[in-house]
Amino acid sequence: MEERWQELVPKFQELLARGDYMAIKRLLSSMEPPDLAEMLDAIPPRTRVLLFRLLPKDLAIEVFEHLEGSTREELLDHFTDGEIAEIIEEMSDDDRTALFDELPAKTVKKLLLKLSPAERDIANELLNYPESSAGRIMTPEFVDLKEYMTAEEAIRRIRQQARKKETIYTCFVIDRERRLLGVVNLEDLIMAEPQTSVRAIMNPDPVCVSTDTDQEEVARIMARYDLHTIPVVDKENRLVGIITFDDIMDVLEEETTEDFERMAGIQPTEEGYLDTNVFTLARKRFMWLTICVLTETITSSVLKEYSLEIQRVVALTYFIPLLIGTGGNAGTQSATLIIRGMTVGEIGWRDLWRVFARETLTGLLLGGALAILAVVRAYMLHTGPDVALIVAFALVVVVLLGNLAGIALPVIAKFFRVDPAVMSGPFIATVVDVCGLIIYFRIARFVLGLS
Amino acid sequence: MEERWQELVPKFQELLARGDYMAIKRLLSSMEPPDLAEMLDAIPPRTRVLLFRLLPKDLAIEVFEHLEGSTREELLDHFTDGEIAEIIEEMSDDDRTALFDELPAKTVKKLLLKLSPAERDIANELLNYPESSAGRIMTPEFVDLKEYMTAEEAIRRIRQQARKKETIYTCFVIDRERRLLGVVNLEDLIMAEPQTSVRAIMNPDPVCVSTDTDQEEVARIMARYDLHTIPVVDKENRLVGIITFDDIMDVLEEETTEDFERMAGIQPTEEGYLDTNVFTLARKRFMWLTICVLTETITSSVLKEYSLEIQRVVALTYFIPLLIGTGGNAGTQSATLIIRGMTVGEIGWRDLWRVFARETLTGLLLGGALAILAVVRAYMLHTGPDVALIVAFALVVVVLLGNLAGIALPVIAKFFRVDPAVMSGPFIATVVDVCGLIIYFRIARFVLGLS
Repeated sequence: MEERWQELVPKFQELLARGDYMAIKRLLSSMEPPDLAEMLDAIPPRTRVLLFRLLPKDLAIEVFEHLEGSTREELLDHFTDGEIAEIIEEMSDDDRTALFDELPAKTVKKLLLKLSPAERDIANELLNYPESSAGRIMTPEFVDLKEYMTAEEAIRRIRQQARKKETIYTCFVIDRERRLLGVVNLEDLIMAEPQTSVRAIMNPDPVCVSTDTDQEEVARIMARYDLHTIPVVDKENRLVGIITFDDIMDVLEEETTEDFERMAGIQPTEEGYLDTNVFTLARKRFMWLTICVLTETITSSVLKEYSLEIQRVVALTYFIPLLIGTGGNAGTQSATLIIRGMTVGEIGWRDLWRVFARETLTGLLLGGALAILAVVRAYMLHTGPDVALIVAFALVVVVLLGNLAGIALPVIAKFFRVDPAVMSGPFIATVVDVCGLIIYFRIARFVLGLS
Repeated sequence: MEERWQELVPKFQELLARGDYMAIKRLLSSMEPPDLAEMLDAIPPRTRVLLFRLLPKDLAIEVFEHLEGSTREELLDHFTDGEIAEIIEEMSDDDRTALFDELPAKTVKKLLLKLSPAERDIANELLNYPESSAGRIMTPEFVDLKEYMTAEEAIRRIRQQARKKETIYTCFVIDRERRLLGVVNLEDLIMAEPQTSVRAIMNPDPVCVSTDTDQEEVARIMARYDLHTIPVVDKENRLVGIITFDDIMDVLEEETTEDFERMAGIQPTEEGYLDTNVFTLARKRFMWLTICVLTETITSSVLKEYSLEIQRVVALTYFIPLLIGTGGNAGTQSATLIIRGMTVGEIGWRDLWRVFARETLTGLLLGGALAILAVVRAYMLHTGPDVALIVAFALVVVVLLGNLAGIALPVIAKFFRVDPAVMSGPFIATVVDVCGLIIYFRIARFVLGLS
């Protein structure tokens, strides 16, 4: 995909060659932070440091937050201590936590020392919350109001505080002990008569989360209630931070990627595909492949047990890949439907019976339709009517089995409070391979009267 | 999952039995629209109509937007024409389009007639944009300002218009021809000196989309630039609507579900799993299962061709499921990583060479490690050293093949401008089954000297 910044690179090179720094500054200021970050990630390090230094301070901080991890570390190496201190001091608290989460522990320790005592306390506090919790991604930079203020006073207070706050569109009403009393939108403050009290227009029972709520749950709640900002309270219901929708969009993307990876039998990678070391990537994929290979070894024993039948009716082997492959595919389909349904909250415990009935019916329908294809194929291969019958019957059973395994395994995972997505397609396909093969040869033995 | 509304149901039943409608109204007003909607979806129809009628009008409209399709249609049947007209007249334009998209065409036609001429024009216009386009999900309810206004005048205009607008936090500066000149945030208007002109504080080069931009692209742009609201312009750069972040969260969830379904070889379903008819569901799954079965029939021919080898060395069959299953699993893993990387924009055309190199290396690493397991297994089954060697060598090749097919097929789809996710795991696994089997027997023939 062509990005908006790409056409500007030659322009920057020309301006740098001419030494026209004023023009560079103007051009930089006209760009959006994510585009600037992507451009800086892509250009050579020397130009990068030069251009970054020419950014106005506010913009530099925003751009810094969007840079890739490796670029950030490299820039930090090039900066003076004073420059670094200025950047991390001014970053918003949630973005700083995110930065620290990515940097090596040693670097974080050094950076923490460069912060002012007040900011260092905040940074340490946020870093103490468990990973992926609401506490870890929140920022304490919210506008707080008192319930006895008038709308006019509230707006005055907002104007005074705005520059240092993450958002002013949602403000939080707290008491002396900093307990959350309500939430008031700037829109309502502006629309209200100046003398109206904040108490009269606030929502006294706002949706909120606690510091240990999982970030994925936070995302789901914010999406459900269409919230721009959500308050985070501690165990004593004291307001300690807020989370805004832009952070949640990142969380949603991350969590979705994790679900995709889990369902393909990959342990979630922390960073993007290209940023992950090849050996790490192989390691993340190895576990489930090994589990599948070990499970598949059962198929070897099954086949060895039936080697007599195979030697006598070699045509039985012709349909092994078709049969177990199809069962695995049906299983993957069912698993995906139910796992996604559980993730978005559409399917709950009380729906299980319906899901079971639906998958049984779909399994029989699909198995029946596909069995017809298999019979045609058997006829074409001149296998004789007995093998055709065996394959057709086995296919119906295996597709049904695939469907049922596809729902059973994620449900079992969920029951044990494990993310149902760990029941990956590959694993489900493997389980269906093993059971399908046993069923196939049982049917064969029965029909051929070989036992 | 226990929802917040569930504990309130007995309370409502008690109040209904007592006929205490005032208390019911108070309790209803204290609830959030999504919870109310979910409760109404779950309770019996008679109580539902009763409770819905007791909702204050504003809340009723919001709740109506959150209800499930079937509940909405049923409520519409119970309402008088006047009640219906009031609800759909007052709905925000984007939510009304979404409602109309779900209702049967006949019902929509009837409902359109109940709208005021002004609203009917808007509704018709929005319904004319292509499905899934920015035009179809936008709303024309934005605050428009002129560039010569002062901050004070702008705020006065916002206060006048606010009640009928989707958001007041982002306002749009247009000229006489309604062309978009810039965007100004309420925050900046409030912080500015009252006499500052809008021109001075607006962003004159805002990120915007056009009416035919795909909704998924809109979501990606808004997430990239952390936008709360994005303007939508027509071909003449006239501002025709806006899209807000809450709509985009729904789009993201929908698109993610579609990607999951496609990757499992399911044609995307329009509605949720439980709302989709079983026969429709079977149909959506049938296509890819059939394609896979038809492709798998090639394996039958391959096996038939090598039936001589199989009869002589029956131990060769023991490893067929293990071998092709593992290749398919590796393919699913690679495909997931690259498809997700392309979806989130991390992997582009220029990265292909790197991806190819990485997948080759990972394939060799994983294949090598798994081959050791396979050799141990062959030893346990007393297959003799030649079969063990064949299996080990074939496994490395098949895993490598799986990796390469896993990246090649999505890339080819992307090249032909098809969503790479259509290259589903099941299809990739099937292709790997076929090629893997051929490779296995070629190696066998070579090692055993049977040709």
